[in-house]
Amino acid sequence: MLSEENNQILTRVGPGTLMGDLLRRYWTPALLSMELPGPDCVPVRVRLLGENLVAFRDTEGKVGLVAENCPHRGASLYFGRNEECGLRCPYHGWKFDTEGTCVDMPSEPADSTFKYKVKLTSYPVHESGGIVWAYLGPRETMTPFRDFGTDSLPEEKVYARKQLARCNWVQTMEGNLDSAHISWLHQFNGVADLPDDGTDKPGYPSNAMAWKFWAHDRAPRLEVHDTWYGYRYAAIRTTPNGNTNVRITEYCVPYSTVVASNPFTTRQLMVVPIDDENCWRYNFTTQVDLNPNGYGGENLFAVSPFETPFRNPGSGITPREYTAENDYLIDREDQRTSTFSGIRDFVSQDFMVTESMGPIYDRTKEHLATTDKAVIRMRNILLKAAKGLPDGGQPPALAGPDHDFRKIRSAEKNLEPGEDWRILGTDDDPVVQEAMLAAANRPPTTPNTPA
Amino acid sequence: MLSEENNQILTRVGPGTLMGDLLRRYWTPALLSMELPGPDCVPVRVRLLGENLVAFRDTEGKVGLVAENCPHRGASLYFGRNEECGLRCPYHGWKFDTEGTCVDMPSEPADSTFKYKVKLTSYPVHESGGIVWAYLGPRETMTPFRDFGTDSLPEEKVYARKQLARCNWVQTMEGNLDSAHISWLHQFNGVADLPDDGTDKPGYPSNAMAWKFWAHDRAPRLEVHDTWYGYRYAAIRTTPNGNTNVRITEYCVPYSTVVASNPFTTRQLMVVPIDDENCWRYNFTTQVDLNPNGYGGENLFAVSPFETPFRNPGSGITPREYTAENDYLIDREDQRTSTFSGIRDFVSQDFMVTESMGPIYDRTKEHLATTDKAVIRMRNILLKAAKGLPDGGQPPALAGPDHDFRKIRSAEKNLEPGEDWRILGTDDDPVVQEAMLAAANRPPTTPNTPA
Amino acid sequence: MLSEENNQILTRVGPGTLMGDLLRRYWTPALLSMELPGPDCVPVRVRLLGENLVAFRDTEGKVGLVAENCPHRGASLYFGRNEECGLRCPYHGWKFDTEGTCVDMPSEPADSTFKYKVKLTSYPVHESGGIVWAYLGPRETMTPFRDFGTDSLPEEKVYARKQLARCNWVQTMEGNLDSAHISWLHQFNGVADLPDDGTDKPGYPSNAMAWKFWAHDRAPRLEVHDTWYGYRYAAIRTTPNGNTNVRITEYCVPYSTVVASNPFTTRQLMVVPIDDENCWRYNFTTQVDLNPNGYGGENLFAVSPFETPFRNPGSGITPREYTAENDYLIDREDQRTSTFSGIRDFVSQDFMVTESMGPIYDRTKEHLATTDKAVIRMRNILLKAAKGLPDGGQPPALAGPDHDFRKIRSAEKNLEPGEDWRILGTDDDPVVQEAMLAAANRPPTTPNTPA
Repeated sequence: MLSEENNQILTRVGPGTLMGDLLRRYWTPALLSMELPGPDCVPVRVRLLGENLVAFRDTEGKVGLVAENCPHRGASLYFGRNEECGLRCPYHGWKFDTEGTCVDMPSEPADSTFKYKVKLTSYPVHESGGIVWAYLGPRETMTPFRDFGTDSLPEEKVYARKQLARCNWVQTMEGNLDSAHISWLHQFNGVADLPDDGTDKPGYPSNAMAWKFWAHDRAPRLEVHDTWYGYRYAAIRTTPNGNTNVRITEYCVPYSTVVASNPFTTRQLMVVPIDDENCWRYNFTTQVDLNPNGYGGENLFAVSPFETPFRNPGSGITPREYTAENDYLIDREDQRTSTFSGIRDFVSQDFMVTESMGPIYDRTKEHLATTDKAVIRMRNILLKAAKGLPDGGQPPALAGPDHDFRKIRSAEKNLEPGEDWRILGTDDDPVVQEAMLAAANRPPTTPNTPA
Repeated sequence: MLSEENNQILTRVGPGTLMGDLLRRYWTPALLSMELPGPDCVPVRVRLLGENLVAFRDTEGKVGLVAENCPHRGASLYFGRNEECGLRCPYHGWKFDTEGTCVDMPSEPADSTFKYKVKLTSYPVHESGGIVWAYLGPRETMTPFRDFGTDSLPEEKVYARKQLARCNWVQTMEGNLDSAHISWLHQFNGVADLPDDGTDKPGYPSNAMAWKFWAHDRAPRLEVHDTWYGYRYAAIRTTPNGNTNVRITEYCVPYSTVVASNPFTTRQLMVVPIDDENCWRYNFTTQVDLNPNGYGGENLFAVSPFETPFRNPGSGITPREYTAENDYLIDREDQRTSTFSGIRDFVSQDFMVTESMGPIYDRTKEHLATTDKAVIRMRNILLKAAKGLPDGGQPPALAGPDHDFRKIRSAEKNLEPGEDWRILGTDDDPVVQEAMLAAANRPPTTPNTPA
Repeated sequence: MLSEENNQILTRVGPGTLMGDLLRRYWTPALLSMELPGPDCVPVRVRLLGENLVAFRDTEGKVGLVAENCPHRGASLYFGRNEECGLRCPYHGWKFDTEGTCVDMPSEPADSTFKYKVKLTSYPVHESGGIVWAYLGPRETMTPFRDFGTDSLPEEKVYARKQLARCNWVQTMEGNLDSAHISWLHQFNGVADLPDDGTDKPGYPSNAMAWKFWAHDRAPRLEVHDTWYGYRYAAIRTTPNGNTNVRITEYCVPYSTVVASNPFTTRQLMVVPIDDENCWRYNFTTQVDLNPNGYGGENLFAVSPFETPFRNPGSGITPREYTAENDYLIDREDQRTSTFSGIRDFVSQDFMVTESMGPIYDRTKEHLATTDKAVIRMRNILLKAAKGLPDGGQPPALAGPDHDFRKIRSAEKNLEPGEDWRILGTDDDPVVQEAMLAAANRPPTTPNTPA
């Protein structure tokens, strides 16, 4: 349970709010690269942390992320002309480059110096992994881009998508950091009866067995282990054969998770606040060389009746057929006889629970249990960091010499006798070491050119 | 005219408001029984007095009316699984019975006692007359169900419907307690010219003659008579032949009316606040044995060009074709030549005037006249009761040994010389006595089993 | 840049606001005469300065403009019966004439005097030039109607239209007082290359040459000249042949402009606030005898690819196909290759820039330049007048013996050597004198009968 005050601090992200100020200290996904398909293409409206922005790709391919409204008299630059390395306002032709510098003010006398006094708000961007990242904080506190492994990702391995969630970002985060609900919300009939395929033993179970374990032990024990980037936590279950299955999920401050996968993965899931009541769920590949199968859960859906969450829409924005307005197309007969939720789309099951909490859930009414340990820890980290900011506190998990964000890896395994789950997925894990060795011996691919 | 303060007190119904607290002291229609057609059926969203609730019928047929959001992390229980005598949350499988008791918390360790500490808000319900009634007030002030005659109603005589009004409940109530407007809003051409069918004399006029009287004397005199349950009032008109016609309407605190009928009726019309800006109009039969024709106004519409208000939709919720958005389908040619309002649906004529006052009418701007006596009296009773509550005042018209709500009966008649209208419809009225005698001699029918 | 406080004062128009009080001192277009096509026609909802009103034309043709809600119990008089010189409430038949006097209260006893105590809010109206004008201020400060030349306009020359703008009225005003943007927003390809048709010399250029001048000199110099009615300002451009082109636009307090035209015009453009976030753009003819071609810009669109703004819809309300919801149908290919804005409708180009500033633009964020001189002057005049009102300040530009609003005329010309632009369009301008003489010698036409 949170106090009303803490709930407000936790959830509000606009300019000048405590959490908004904290989030602005991190490089943040702003839009997908594919939304700006080429030089001088059509500008795109971007709403981020409660700010209305416009993104455009200039003649040289550079991306600008600027305030939507022209600093002159406020016309929307979304309707502007994207031409000759700048965005020109449709009202009086004032033109700004990607840095927000006014490079032409042709409605004023030729000798006017006024253009040097006018600046369009512009945020630094960095394109990496199919995503345009931006830094919305004060320039004097800007730290380097956090590379989760996208900077060296070969072009053909880039995969990034986003999907709209119509609720506060923290609700979506809390769902991502909740390993217990897969035993409930996402379940379907017959899973507990799946035949033992021989992988219910120490080591790496098949995905089918993983489903079986979740259905078998529906009250996982959670252990949270603090790290420099946030924490990793294990959801621990006993398998039908009495083995100890652990699913490790990573949390990197402020909004990033790597969901447990087999044997390990670095695939990122990030929850980016649009404003207080909406957020984007980004998911994208990183370091595919380490984990050639990409998302560990590819086969996850092979045994389930659900639609796969990672469809491949042309726009990069996965559409929503299942919404609050249509009750997520819940099928009560399906709910009675086939699936726990009655909802056929896996991710929409998550939307159903997180959005039905309301736009901003009132956490004074909640009753947290032992499976909410990771949720509680995330809140405490965020609240402490946000409240410490006005006193000069340094936000956690910023880029720094000792911070290699590519090493944040989730994992899933049936433990060997005496094995410590905290090793899994780390550099000390033999499976990871083997993968790194294999990657080093693989012929190099052409990396992305970081912007 | 009301002060702004009194208008706020009168109209606001949310938790913690004066009027909201008063209304919570009464058993209130929450939904129709037919909305929960059988054991383990689909749950139903209910919004009542500004609270979001879910109703469900469990495996044994018992109805639960509970808070919509799970006390764990707030997912909507509307999407829950209604199974094995309880509603199970779709997120983590926590399960609650109709009392709100957590009967299963399977995501927690088997030996956890946490489930005994978690309670889902649940309100007592009582099913009667095709309606699920609920008590939303504090348990310590709960009084018995007020039986308006539905508890003993035979199954085949049960009739209950509801229709949505998109305005504050008091506006709808005031329309129901306003006998004058039938001479105007609901009129149509040619009524005054209807031939005298011989019933314009002391006694019970035909429905056609009733229409004729309303059209003939369009400025009725109102007399209000206070009673233990609220009041009854008479609208008194002089007929073309010089007789005195009275229409008696009952008001039972807080939101119930019995509209004048011939010779008398107990048919209820209740106005139940959904929130401050919406309400349900419930209407339902009671004590049909006393009044075999049910609603006295069945023939009322035979002489009128209007659609009958009591259609019989399968869902129990009468749909609205005539809305503010379509100007209530007003036909100006019809208004000029045929009907006073230009609106062909009788009840929609009421919606047009009450909804067009705005979501919450500003009563500082009104100018009340002599025909508003009953309206004023209702407000005074409600305001006095609501304001007295914090000082321990006892709300009027609660269940009690001397309070037989079945005796609340409206009536309509042309008075005999010297006859007192206050007798009509009461136990002292010979017509009522005769009906009671006939009912007593009729073979018994199987009553509903009260829950 | 404005302070937040001044921005609020400038933009808010509801009852009791400073600017709302100022605007209520002027006769204001309320609706088009053609919206009330004949005696006893259907009433019309009017929202004006944040007030909900109803307009009706009575049996004798007189127009009433009254509060929407009946003073009795608030039912909307829009649904009322417009009959026998009054509007009758649909609820209880109370009837009001165009003055708001209760002329019938038939639901009350025949000898009741209550009707003399009840008054429906009614505003004085004056029909002129196809427009129903109203005065919404206090009666004691009412001044005569300001005749811009419509009172004597022959019936067949009356032309008045309105179109909805979904933004604060000041944004629309500022667009109308901004001669610079025609060199940008409204431009299209090839204009600068139009052949010299011989009118790029001192005197009156052709419309094609005017377009050429705007495209040639895209940074006009603005000069503002204060007048008794507000101001007139000139946008001064150098033509390809080195001549000095001036476009003079008139501003009459509070919301009226006459846009520069060739040789001169009195055609009015008025921006009438519906409420804080919506306004009507009225445009109408005046004194056609002086300027037989009516709107000077008839040929303006002959050389452009744009749709003409002055379409002739039956209702008088020009519909909007180009809206914020459809991004004003912007065609990015058209924007790249043909027009500056990519929007094919001339007026919708204006809507795009003024509406995309948001419902009420935050002027603390703007950066005004030399082309905004006229915009700044308008704001200063309005703010000074509004702030002075509580201290008894007299609003400018009210009707008075020395104030002939028919003399407010815009003009456009290439200046003769030594010519002062301040003379153009005034009584001292030979072209105007010639037109007045011609008008005086023309046979008289039947003027409108002012109401």
